[in-house]
Amino acid sequence: MSKVFSSGRALSVAEVAQWDVVTDVAIVGFGAAGSCAAIEARKAGARVDIFEVASAPGGSASWSGGEVYVGGSGGTEIQRQHGFTDATEDLQRYLMMSGGPAADKDRVTLYANNAADHFEWLGAQGVPFKGTYLPGKWIEPTTDDTLIWSGNEKAWPFSAQAKPAPRGHTVQFTGWGGGKLFMEKLCARAMELGVTAHYDSRAVCLITDSSGAVKGLVIRKAGENIFVQARHGVILCAGGFITNREMVARYAPEALRCEQLVTGGNDDGSGIRMGISVGATTLNMHEFFATLPFFPPESLIKGIFVNERSQRFINEDTYHGRVAHYVLRQPNGRVWLLVDNDIFGRPMIQPNITIAAVGETWEEIEAELELEPGSLVETVNEFNRHAAEGKDPYLHKSAEWLRPLVTPPFAALSYCPGDIEGHAFTLGGLATKPTGEVLDADGQPIAGLYAAGRTACGLPRWGEGYSSGMSLGDSTFFGRQAGLSAAALVAND
Amino acid sequence: MSKVFSSGRALSVAEVAQWDVVTDVAIVGFGAAGSCAAIEARKAGARVDIFEVASAPGGSASWSGGEVYVGGSGGTEIQRQHGFTDATEDLQRYLMMSGGPAADKDRVTLYANNAADHFEWLGAQGVPFKGTYLPGKWIEPTTDDTLIWSGNEKAWPFSAQAKPAPRGHTVQFTGWGGGKLFMEKLCARAMELGVTAHYDSRAVCLITDSSGAVKGLVIRKAGENIFVQARHGVILCAGGFITNREMVARYAPEALRCEQLVTGGNDDGSGIRMGISVGATTLNMHEFFATLPFFPPESLIKGIFVNERSQRFINEDTYHGRVAHYVLRQPNGRVWLLVDNDIFGRPMIQPNITIAAVGETWEEIEAELELEPGSLVETVNEFNRHAAEGKDPYLHKSAEWLRPLVTPPFAALSYCPGDIEGHAFTLGGLATKPTGEVLDADGQPIAGLYAAGRTACGLPRWGEGYSSGMSLGDSTFFGRQAGLSAAALVAND
Repeated sequence: MSKVFSSGRALSVAEVAQWDVVTDVAIVGFGAAGSCAAIEARKAGARVDIFEVASAPGGSASWSGGEVYVGGSGGTEIQRQHGFTDATEDLQRYLMMSGGPAADKDRVTLYANNAADHFEWLGAQGVPFKGTYLPGKWIEPTTDDTLIWSGNEKAWPFSAQAKPAPRGHTVQFTGWGGGKLFMEKLCARAMELGVTAHYDSRAVCLITDSSGAVKGLVIRKAGENIFVQARHGVILCAGGFITNREMVARYAPEALRCEQLVTGGNDDGSGIRMGISVGATTLNMHEFFATLPFFPPESLIKGIFVNERSQRFINEDTYHGRVAHYVLRQPNGRVWLLVDNDIFGRPMIQPNITIAAVGETWEEIEAELELEPGSLVETVNEFNRHAAEGKDPYLHKSAEWLRPLVTPPFAALSYCPGDIEGHAFTLGGLATKPTGEVLDADGQPIAGLYAAGRTACGLPRWGEGYSSGMSLGDSTFFGRQAGLSAAALVAND
Repeated sequence: MSKVFSSGRALSVAEVAQWDVVTDVAIVGFGAAGSCAAIEARKAGARVDIFEVASAPGGSASWSGGEVYVGGSGGTEIQRQHGFTDATEDLQRYLMMSGGPAADKDRVTLYANNAADHFEWLGAQGVPFKGTYLPGKWIEPTTDDTLIWSGNEKAWPFSAQAKPAPRGHTVQFTGWGGGKLFMEKLCARAMELGVTAHYDSRAVCLITDSSGAVKGLVIRKAGENIFVQARHGVILCAGGFITNREMVARYAPEALRCEQLVTGGNDDGSGIRMGISVGATTLNMHEFFATLPFFPPESLIKGIFVNERSQRFINEDTYHGRVAHYVLRQPNGRVWLLVDNDIFGRPMIQPNITIAAVGETWEEIEAELELEPGSLVETVNEFNRHAAEGKDPYLHKSAEWLRPLVTPPFAALSYCPGDIEGHAFTLGGLATKPTGEVLDADGQPIAGLYAAGRTACGLPRWGEGYSSGMSLGDSTFFGRQAGLSAAALVAND
């Protein structure tokens, strides 16, 4: 066995005896960000080598729904065909809200201005979109339709600040899991353009010169080290860190409550750790996407969530990931979804959910849940009184989903710890400019280092504000920017 | 002007033409952590040079209350004198809860086992403690008494999991601001032991060799660079980053809502940035101490906080900093403290607080605050009904502070944005072992680099769990460990 390097410590270029591979742009990870970085760098004339730890391309994006969150510029062609206009300003306002307190205005602005064009670009690379619109509220389409409402657009407070439009654009694929087709097309395009792909190849450490500039990296393959010189830059597109439970415990311990990891299996944080090793700073490392998919069926959205104090706490018509974050933070994590007979259904994703109480009256439900006498009845009565008038003065659930819960029998579905399984992936990562340049603690770029996708802290950076399609939209768009940035230097050769 | 270096980028030792200062241990910052590190390193026989950006020693600790959070081992001498026993296990359980989801068990265990001894040690360095006990609930004593209840010990949920004891031990000083005396004693002790102190000396960047080990640092003084060789290590004790508003915006944007910065003025994040520059990882960078000091007078604790939905959300007898975090996260940040005539008083720290409503009935208060009809009256009535029975089933405020709010006139003190000023300092920082060794992203120590105090992510790392005296207790105790660790290497010379 040759020497084993550590991702937490960069290797000095003085220690490299010889280069085994010499390239212009070395990309770590052949997923959504890596493939798009490769396409743009190759088109710009760079020699591109891509190193993928798995035996095949695609990354975690292959396991996604194959949906991108795009709009603005008046609307994508598909939005406009179905009668939806979408001003860039509305997309921008929505994305700023979605980014939470640490939203990155420069990044949001660049994306909002170019998202519609980016959608065209994805089509031009071979990703198929049928062009149809699917009304209703979906987690992902189960049909091969394209356009859906995939976020918080129509829900308060987002709807009050940005004109809503459906912006989830999904690859043409019947059933869930269209990410596989989406990534097959992008990876095929990269290969067709002449990218050199290395599989079963684990990036283990960066190589720097005495000024701190990144000059290459060490790849581990079949027990041997391969020293790669990257003349114009290394682009880290190695995913997030949800599979690295020690990193999750250290940086995002709240995410440990979600047992289902949303990953292709290699989101081990190695890209982030390599960035840190050369002086990069990280952002929002505690943030994560989470969901407890409580619908479909859509009728359940008409139910109300209450905590152990019998308090409501969220408008249930908001994005399921936002609901999940609010559920997880309730006292002792104890939450129930209250439904009546008219809207009852078993959640598609967890049909065997625990039904914690069933009764002919809300008094019975309250007693069975062992809540403070009178408390739940008061909450439901007040909700019903307002719902009958089509209003929700506290939580602003939209009238479309408001109806009194008055048809017995009533039931409480348990979203308490132990009864449900959350799904999560990480949103924190390396600080970068919109160009993909990785930043040090003073906000200055580290020469020769770029990052995109979940290795970077990107557009989606706040669990409460996530919308489906944001990660894939961000990874593909900012992967392209990183590829363009690194390859721009080739022109100077 | 000579070359200006950047804290975000380490300098290669190969670039150093000559060393201007050669020492065993170089300490950045002559505050609580730095002075204690210096004392221990000097006692262990190391040559110690300490570099302080201000013109005098003391750091932010000089502006503190001069209070340390200690106990365990059956109780400090002062706890025991006043009839309080304090098992190490109780202190440990309390500190684990206080550390929140990312609590560091190794660090907590070391501290809990040694806190009582550490208190003796502080006395032996010359810090005076009168030895008296002050009952009641204080932010800091205004008398020169020693022992107070300074945290969440008697409040739910802490009280349910760890046997309460008062653990705030305050320097003997009449009035607020005993930190000045506390620090004068520690800094004098360090000087007496032969530490060399350099004032008006800004640490600007670390110096590393090709293996990444820290070999020294560059100091900027009077426009010139001073190259310092630290043969056995650099200890970063440069405080947090609350004065660096760009860093606060990037890492802890929620803290921007607090306008009063708890600092001596030099918590500019330079220590953290220098650590990042050599591959250190950071923890909990989004966390911060915050307070909206709503008492004294103590009677106000008997009031109830409600949000714009007329919901209560916190047991008001919990630590004021925990209350502040709950206030800040309420919808639109809109919160009022409801009081009746029996408990009314003007908050000592903000006597001109906005009184948003006054009325003879709670209906009048509700209408004046423009809350949903019936909602506030229901909340107050239910609280009063329970309080009359000495219970608070939802929020578990202890019986000692429970009484019905029934004596008109009633009032609502505004804790809404614009009406109050929060006070904050940062809790995130470099990842370290309890020894003070700074860790890289793989959890491995970076040779030659140590950190303590608010430059590190220490014992206090969760705003919701902070107790007065934790930062000073942590800084002095873990400053000592860092000094001992660095100086241990001197014995090998």
